[in-house]
Amino acid sequence: MRVGHATVIADPPGRPPARTGVTAVLPHPGDLVAQPVPAGCFVLNGYGKAVGLPQVEELGRLETPILLTNTLDVWRCAEALADYVLARHPDLRTVNPVVLECNDGRLSGIRVHHVTPAAVAAALAEAASNPGPLAQGSVGAGTGMVAFQVKGGVGSASRQVPVPPEAVPWLRAALRPSPAGEPPAGEPPGRLTVGALVLANFGRWEELTVAGVPVGRLLPRPPGPTPPPDRTGSIIMLLATDAPLDPTTLRRLARRAPLGMARTGGVAHHGSGDFALAFAVRPPAAEPPPPALLDLLFLAAVEATEEAILSALFTAGPMAGDGGVAVPGLPVQEVLSLLPPWAREEPERLR
Amino acid sequence: MRVGHATVIADPPGRPPARTGVTAVLPHPGDLVAQPVPAGCFVLNGYGKAVGLPQVEELGRLETPILLTNTLDVWRCAEALADYVLARHPDLRTVNPVVLECNDGRLSGIRVHHVTPAAVAAALAEAASNPGPLAQGSVGAGTGMVAFQVKGGVGSASRQVPVPPEAVPWLRAALRPSPAGEPPAGEPPGRLTVGALVLANFGRWEELTVAGVPVGRLLPRPPGPTPPPDRTGSIIMLLATDAPLDPTTLRRLARRAPLGMARTGGVAHHGSGDFALAFAVRPPAAEPPPPALLDLLFLAAVEATEEAILSALFTAGPMAGDGGVAVPGLPVQEVLSLLPPWAREEPERLR
Amino acid sequence: MRVGHATVIADPPGRPPARTGVTAVLPHPGDLVAQPVPAGCFVLNGYGKAVGLPQVEELGRLETPILLTNTLDVWRCAEALADYVLARHPDLRTVNPVVLECNDGRLSGIRVHHVTPAAVAAALAEAASNPGPLAQGSVGAGTGMVAFQVKGGVGSASRQVPVPPEAVPWLRAALRPSPAGEPPAGEPPGRLTVGALVLANFGRWEELTVAGVPVGRLLPRPPGPTPPPDRTGSIIMLLATDAPLDPTTLRRLARRAPLGMARTGGVAHHGSGDFALAFAVRPPAAEPPPPALLDLLFLAAVEATEEAILSALFTAGPMAGDGGVAVPGLPVQEVLSLLPPWAREEPERLR
Amino acid sequence: MRVGHATVIADPPGRPPARTGVTAVLPHPGDLVAQPVPAGCFVLNGYGKAVGLPQVEELGRLETPILLTNTLDVWRCAEALADYVLARHPDLRTVNPVVLECNDGRLSGIRVHHVTPAAVAAALAEAASNPGPLAQGSVGAGTGMVAFQVKGGVGSASRQVPVPPEAVPWLRAALRPSPAGEPPAGEPPGRLTVGALVLANFGRWEELTVAGVPVGRLLPRPPGPTPPPDRTGSIIMLLATDAPLDPTTLRRLARRAPLGMARTGGVAHHGSGDFALAFAVRPPAAEPPPPALLDLLFLAAVEATEEAILSALFTAGPMAGDGGVAVPGLPVQEVLSLLPPWAREEPERLR
Repeated sequence: MRVGHATVIADPPGRPPARTGVTAVLPHPGDLVAQPVPAGCFVLNGYGKAVGLPQVEELGRLETPILLTNTLDVWRCAEALADYVLARHPDLRTVNPVVLECNDGRLSGIRVHHVTPAAVAAALAEAASNPGPLAQGSVGAGTGMVAFQVKGGVGSASRQVPVPPEAVPWLRAALRPSPAGEPPAGEPPGRLTVGALVLANFGRWEELTVAGVPVGRLLPRPPGPTPPPDRTGSIIMLLATDAPLDPTTLRRLARRAPLGMARTGGVAHHGSGDFALAFAVRPPAAEPPPPALLDLLFLAAVEATEEAILSALFTAGPMAGDGGVAVPGLPVQEVLSLLPPWAREEPERLR
Repeated sequence: MRVGHATVIADPPGRPPARTGVTAVLPHPGDLVAQPVPAGCFVLNGYGKAVGLPQVEELGRLETPILLTNTLDVWRCAEALADYVLARHPDLRTVNPVVLECNDGRLSGIRVHHVTPAAVAAALAEAASNPGPLAQGSVGAGTGMVAFQVKGGVGSASRQVPVPPEAVPWLRAALRPSPAGEPPAGEPPGRLTVGALVLANFGRWEELTVAGVPVGRLLPRPPGPTPPPDRTGSIIMLLATDAPLDPTTLRRLARRAPLGMARTGGVAHHGSGDFALAFAVRPPAAEPPPPALLDLLFLAAVEATEEAILSALFTAGPMAGDGGVAVPGLPVQEVLSLLPPWAREEPERLR
Repeated sequence: MRVGHATVIADPPGRPPARTGVTAVLPHPGDLVAQPVPAGCFVLNGYGKAVGLPQVEELGRLETPILLTNTLDVWRCAEALADYVLARHPDLRTVNPVVLECNDGRLSGIRVHHVTPAAVAAALAEAASNPGPLAQGSVGAGTGMVAFQVKGGVGSASRQVPVPPEAVPWLRAALRPSPAGEPPAGEPPGRLTVGALVLANFGRWEELTVAGVPVGRLLPRPPGPTPPPDRTGSIIMLLATDAPLDPTTLRRLARRAPLGMARTGGVAHHGSGDFALAFAVRPPAAEPPPPALLDLLFLAAVEATEEAILSALFTAGPMAGDGGVAVPGLPVQEVLSLLPPWAREEPERLR
Repeated sequence: MRVGHATVIADPPGRPPARTGVTAVLPHPGDLVAQPVPAGCFVLNGYGKAVGLPQVEELGRLETPILLTNTLDVWRCAEALADYVLARHPDLRTVNPVVLECNDGRLSGIRVHHVTPAAVAAALAEAASNPGPLAQGSVGAGTGMVAFQVKGGVGSASRQVPVPPEAVPWLRAALRPSPAGEPPAGEPPGRLTVGALVLANFGRWEELTVAGVPVGRLLPRPPGPTPPPDRTGSIIMLLATDAPLDPTTLRRLARRAPLGMARTGGVAHHGSGDFALAFAVRPPAAEPPPPALLDLLFLAAVEATEEAILSALFTAGPMAGDGGVAVPGLPVQEVLSLLPPWAREEPERLR
């Protein structure tokens, strides 16, 4: 999974400011039209403007990168993504761009369309060229997001799981020669990875839970804007894995992501669009993996999603925006000081 | 249900021609944000780029007009529709436009985005001002559509059903005072209506069935382009009713629309996005109607959908377009001459 | 697909008569727990008591034979089927029997549980031992069924489709060595089959359509019982194929079955449980087949379902039952005499 | 919601012991056929044998009590429940019993069918006659359940939410006169309740989380049987409310229940059937409640589900069963001693 951001911050005279952006996620560096990846999705709460899901649900495959952006720029991002793909395929007359969104209208002048096709192109270009670690917090689509009434944004985390012995034959058979004939390279890997990337824009302060500690009830809410009751945000949860899962199994994986969100205090408010999408970066196996491996992957999906949300909060920092609104960052030190020893011993979960 | 079309036909020098458009459907002439209508949808085959369905499925309501257009202009139409609504609601920061599409890329230069926000505005304006009968065939979104390898497009039909005695108490209770307090006007109506509007762009000639007659096997295919195998089109099926149905029942109604499509020979090819959406033009009743009425409404939905598809074919006429392609119209007289007496006696079904 | 019937006809003194039974369908003659088959289902109208579908939907596989029976014996058939499997697997503590039903309560004393575990065992034994053509009409689960207000029951039909050249590599790769290591035998087949088996118990006379001819409107309804409005039956549609389809594709195949039902006049009445289940008799391929083959399989599913329903009607004959009710058979000669030449030229569709 | 249990504990010579039972849940004390209640369900992980869900999903209503029992007795309980309803309705020829299950085969001889129709009748009778507090832990269907590798079973909890001012008009309109004409009694209530009843049989010790504390990682697992990897249990989550919610909203409520499960450490293992069903005890309103009330109800569903699971663990105690297996109870004092002050201050959550 390669990720690129285009952050759009501007204060144009006479117009509402921009605190927004777009984030691009590439399942693999190749051509997704020629080599689509298997995918499955799950809509916990469909109060959202996700583009492209019906075809992913129907075919179980992803044929474009995924974009994340703000609610009202989701359609122009979809067109820009479609045009990006069409430009590389002169004969193509249809393509299914997948764009997901959260509403950053508390900080950004969302009614003005601040995201441009150039921003989409920049995010896609960065994603294509950057195999390394990804920027988190208030970047790209995360720029203007608010979670638990403090600054949210993009977060990421991953888990590695060992391949249990009973799953080795499955994995060996699954890493089959491609239709072009090249054999799989060497022995199957001993570990598989589940990565999560979230766009966190949900929740109320009093719900915030960090490593099991009800931080939002123990600490006073940092001063900041109170969103109106029906605009309590959304969350996008992407899961990527190098396990060669089929669409049916990926759909099952996607259904576990909200369980990780729940651990952070999420309750899927009425106005919160809670969308999960899981994809594999390899061609699918014909059969699902043995249960022992499957359970490890499911647990990894839950834990990676939880950590990705916390990571967004821990990295985002404060931000001021539209109408003088100033959203504080998570008071990281105060939160850390509340954590009991068993939680502090988990450096990988809390950085 | 009020309908307006913006037809986009142009032959700009040096660019692929436009044979496309946009069609707007208004459930009622009022403000849909303030008075959303109950709705339900059904995706028979999700190979399509429909915008806005997750939220309709989640909430069971429609808060904007519906637009129909071509596959690659679906996102710009969504943005134009959102902007149209936002312009009328200065405080709104989110809205869920619903836009459905079929691929007219055989006749129209679909890779060029020929549909503009002005076309969307024109279609919406015509819909708002025109309560009367609607133009069908090669108009609006139907301009460049091809069905059964002859000219398709927009078609419409409706059925009236009597309210059986056991349903009168339900209907009387359902036509409740609005939240604003005005009482329902007088006695409940003795008849209820189900209307269908389709965008027909699916099927192969040999599959075409008219009033049960396998026309496509009995008549030679009119000369015209043969679409490649995986680009065999799509169909959008809208159902509107003045029965005060709740979202659960409307979802059930939407599921019957493809049965009407099947009667015309449709088999939902792999590459065909087959989407149905049903809405009521009145606030929902708290309970579903009695089974006797429900069955009449279900039958009406099937029959109106079948007739709407035929109506599109019968009204569309031939059209030439991109790359010199000339799609013939349905040979209406030859088709009519094939129909047995029992079919010719059905003027309302075949005009 | 192997099929066995246990027909239960009895007139016990002092108790309502039995006109019912059970039908067993085996995807393959082996052990389905050890070698489950890929499967997908589609519920067009969930007004039914189907047992076992959630797990089929979740896992995309079938681990027992399928039973068909009457509505109120569905649960005891499920227990008997589970016990049948458990008896062959001493260590098993869970199993997911799949049992589907229609309501034969117009002819049979359905409130008395006439179907016994012995009948289930008999149907399963017949299915296991009989690879040949299957009995249709008023046999097994079809014994007491009524369709279009004449006698319905079990019907079956199949279609063979050629494997187009572009699908040969897919098929060759899909017929992979089993985990036990034996290679696929020789060249891939040049044809693939889609078979349909239905339990037809739905529809009103005036809706009946045979080969496109609205028979129910052209012929007077044969004298017989008029079912009350909300008890207009159900239909179970099973599809089996030797194409090595994955669960996602089988789900898509199942969604086409109701389109075949629609061709016979079905409109999915409120009280009609319309369930479709498709399975493959081979292990799944990792990828779906090319669109050209997929479209042929989809068309085959529609046509086989239509023909299977007609086959049930054409073979069922009249039957008398509970309370002196006498349900007439389809007046086959009168129906045939109505068919235009183009319909009579289709012997395979109408026998 | 009225609840009754029939506990089946027996050690018959020469046969596997019984540690099982059945639990009956009545939405209201009246006749559910005449007065069905609105309902909605959500299947997080369909690896289970739930009976009756397709019709609940289709119609959005519940027409029988709900039974909970063990996996392999689910079908006989369904028949017994159907017979119970049929006996009270001499003309009825169809009914949709709803029975949900978890697998108690680690403690109980599940291959022997220990639950009898008499046990079903006893549970239903107790439910009908007992409006008071319900027994929890190892009773009824909970008798043999294991959760987090310690003793699980039945648990229950509820939350009251205030009706915010903006929801009062909705509630007043919703408490409409019944079709029989009686007016709603007095002013709408100032509080509404969401109750949860779970059958907890899922999870591994190391996953157990109590009030946010990772108890399963901090305490050694009490000695007991280790279930094999693919038999890690299931959970049934029932939600009942006196808010007059429509089926669409109840479906949304049901989707929140697993978020409460996630707070206890649940990750929905492959072999875990995770089913949620929400129902209202009143006729539905025509419209969903205002967002402010909806969010309170959603939070209540999450919290009540979490607490109901913990309540099952805290009340269940140890149990010995089949093959000498002895499942320990949760070490309540050790768990309580681990809880930080903020958790101990929550008496209502932990009793």
